[in-house]
Amino acid sequence: MTYPRESTGLLLVDPYNDFLSEGGKLHGLAKPVADAVGTLDNLRKVVAAARKAGIQLFYVPHHRARPDDLKSWKYPSPYQIGAARAQVFAAGTWGGEWHPDFQPQAGDVLVHEHWGGSGFANTDLDYQLKQHGVQQVILVGMLANTCIESTGRFAAELGYHVTLVRDATAAFSPEAMHAAHELNGPTYAHAILTTEDVLTAIGP
Amino acid sequence: MTYPRESTGLLLVDPYNDFLSEGGKLHGLAKPVADAVGTLDNLRKVVAAARKAGIQLFYVPHHRARPDDLKSWKYPSPYQIGAARAQVFAAGTWGGEWHPDFQPQAGDVLVHEHWGGSGFANTDLDYQLKQHGVQQVILVGMLANTCIESTGRFAAELGYHVTLVRDATAAFSPEAMHAAHELNGPTYAHAILTTEDVLTAIGP
Amino acid sequence: MTYPRESTGLLLVDPYNDFLSEGGKLHGLAKPVADAVGTLDNLRKVVAAARKAGIQLFYVPHHRARPDDLKSWKYPSPYQIGAARAQVFAAGTWGGEWHPDFQPQAGDVLVHEHWGGSGFANTDLDYQLKQHGVQQVILVGMLANTCIESTGRFAAELGYHVTLVRDATAAFSPEAMHAAHELNGPTYAHAILTTEDVLTAIGP
Amino acid sequence: MTYPRESTGLLLVDPYNDFLSEGGKLHGLAKPVADAVGTLDNLRKVVAAARKAGIQLFYVPHHRARPDDLKSWKYPSPYQIGAARAQVFAAGTWGGEWHPDFQPQAGDVLVHEHWGGSGFANTDLDYQLKQHGVQQVILVGMLANTCIESTGRFAAELGYHVTLVRDATAAFSPEAMHAAHELNGPTYAHAILTTEDVLTAIGP
Repeated sequence: MTYPRESTGLLLVDPYNDFLSEGGKLHGLAKPVADAVGTLDNLRKVVAAARKAGIQLFYVPHHRARPDDLKSWKYPSPYQIGAARAQVFAAGTWGGEWHPDFQPQAGDVLVHEHWGGSGFANTDLDYQLKQHGVQQVILVGMLANTCIESTGRFAAELGYHVTLVRDATAAFSPEAMHAAHELNGPTYAHAILTTEDVLTAIGP
Repeated sequence: MTYPRESTGLLLVDPYNDFLSEGGKLHGLAKPVADAVGTLDNLRKVVAAARKAGIQLFYVPHHRARPDDLKSWKYPSPYQIGAARAQVFAAGTWGGEWHPDFQPQAGDVLVHEHWGGSGFANTDLDYQLKQHGVQQVILVGMLANTCIESTGRFAAELGYHVTLVRDATAAFSPEAMHAAHELNGPTYAHAILTTEDVLTAIGP
Repeated sequence: MTYPRESTGLLLVDPYNDFLSEGGKLHGLAKPVADAVGTLDNLRKVVAAARKAGIQLFYVPHHRARPDDLKSWKYPSPYQIGAARAQVFAAGTWGGEWHPDFQPQAGDVLVHEHWGGSGFANTDLDYQLKQHGVQQVILVGMLANTCIESTGRFAAELGYHVTLVRDATAAFSPEAMHAAHELNGPTYAHAILTTEDVLTAIGP
Repeated sequence: MTYPRESTGLLLVDPYNDFLSEGGKLHGLAKPVADAVGTLDNLRKVVAAARKAGIQLFYVPHHRARPDDLKSWKYPSPYQIGAARAQVFAAGTWGGEWHPDFQPQAGDVLVHEHWGGSGFANTDLDYQLKQHGVQQVILVGMLANTCIESTGRFAAELGYHVTLVRDATAAFSPEAMHAAHELNGPTYAHAILTTEDVLTAIGP
């Protein structure tokens, strides 16, 4: 698997405190799997390696909750209703800020926030990828079977070469990880790698 | 859950002989789960009930394979390459025809063929739903964790109310069914029902 | 032409000071046509009538310029380059604020900013319309042959019923207005009305 | 302007007999402008030059009319209703066949038919472009202010580099041509060339 610097993009999905930091609203739910596979450290390695290799970074953020979200909507999903109730990634709060180790740097692209699971849906991600000449995307971040999987499925349908990184993500259960990487990933992704594989491919 | 006749659509995904008929190329792979949950009979029931209730039917077909598919493509996925090699749902063959019990009738909408998993991607499905005033979609057909799930994830991102029917679909393994309906479905779908539930809601 | 309250949306495109207020960067260019057709007053009337009728308002804003926009882009268009150079609708400036008479009110939907001409492209407009049950859109704002026309062409392709309002918009020349409403509008729009027509249809 | 062979695509829009051949349903309407600018001969030159240069061709076809089209639609536009009534580009008829000089050749991509004006809307054009590595599109065919313009506006919003060719298209009036190339084209396109310019750029 080769990742030409000028046509590869690293999609960093939802590196929020609520997911990645002690005390975050969803941190406890993801922690067992994250600790088991070493998510946080692997994310640090992949992001650092991508920066070093000159691969463009795209922040792909979930909608930051606001108190009056969904109020006038016809069809919010139960999942969206739950997230709104818990005010996950709440706008203007610590939980909706980036984890300290994943602060955007000059030149990073911050994509519009997405309302559901896919970073492409209702955002400028596809446009920004094209404007940067990206044809291959490497997906890391949270969670393997929700935002990463939806973003990956959309990327494949949009014609991108899609790489999942099985230990630079996490989920709320081992079986959700298994579903993402063993059952579903192989039906749409072009490559399912480890962090080690990625570092080998793009340089450490 | 209510399904107003005029704003509900039934999406019938890939009711091909290759999936649903004895001798079909993928029939054997899906048969254990399909037999266990009664897929074929439930599909018959849901389709008949929808027709009787005056709910609009949309055929959502996967691309029918042709010998020279993908030849000039940069990034066909391994899954697409495998399907092309096996010429699944081959154009002009029995495997790519509709199962005899699911022949389109006058007034049904035949959506453009999709290249990947989502019936929305690169097709006129969203347009046809809008042109028919559909705001809620009920998804049935094959397979639970591939085309149904991708179509459902897209439908949710597009703003539709999404209903999965857990026994009017199938998969290549029980754990893939489990992943579709217990792990992933609840993160994007609005309702996950049984055929019996659907018949109760729209009339038998 | 009828506009049911619950399935109609008013799309208010780019009501920025830079377009609509004395001293705005593009105000002078639009002023001759705007004065001739009474754009500002007609916008006030349509917006007030829509609010009174209980029709949902959607703000459809162009990207607010930032100094480092487009820097890393492969294919910014000449038009985008010009707008970036002039910092039209600059973020954090008066020019990029709403005209005083078109301040959003509680319950209005603020759509993501768009990068080009279409309010649908790379934004959540289609999603928000669906989440509010909107099937018919009335387009007002600036400019007739650029953002309004692109948004209208996209709306039609997405399956919406599209209404243009010929005197609740403006352009940089009378011939651009003519092109928008006499040459191109009739090839995609469902209705091309006057403000007076709209007031009659939805109530003054 | 440079057009690298491997990242450029020629989009050939609606080269149907109904547009381009004597006796076609829309031929008479387009003939005055087409004769004046030499549309047919320029299309021949551009297509030949693209083939010779190894630039990928994409056929971008409008929906071929069928007698029962639009019957169940909520919001067909007046333009679509007119085209359906006249059965323009009727399926299975001479009018809906390619002009004899523009027969697809092995390796050409035939995109799904579009329902409105944009070759991207509800089709696999964006997907096919990505699968062929195309980042720059050259648009030729019919008509300048309808399908070419809608396809061009969409292409720009999708992040492509867009080139219009002012004498390899036509319209129903000189003012519609003027609107397409002088008023609107410059607001979204990256280049507006002549056939001669294109031949110089890609080789004759």
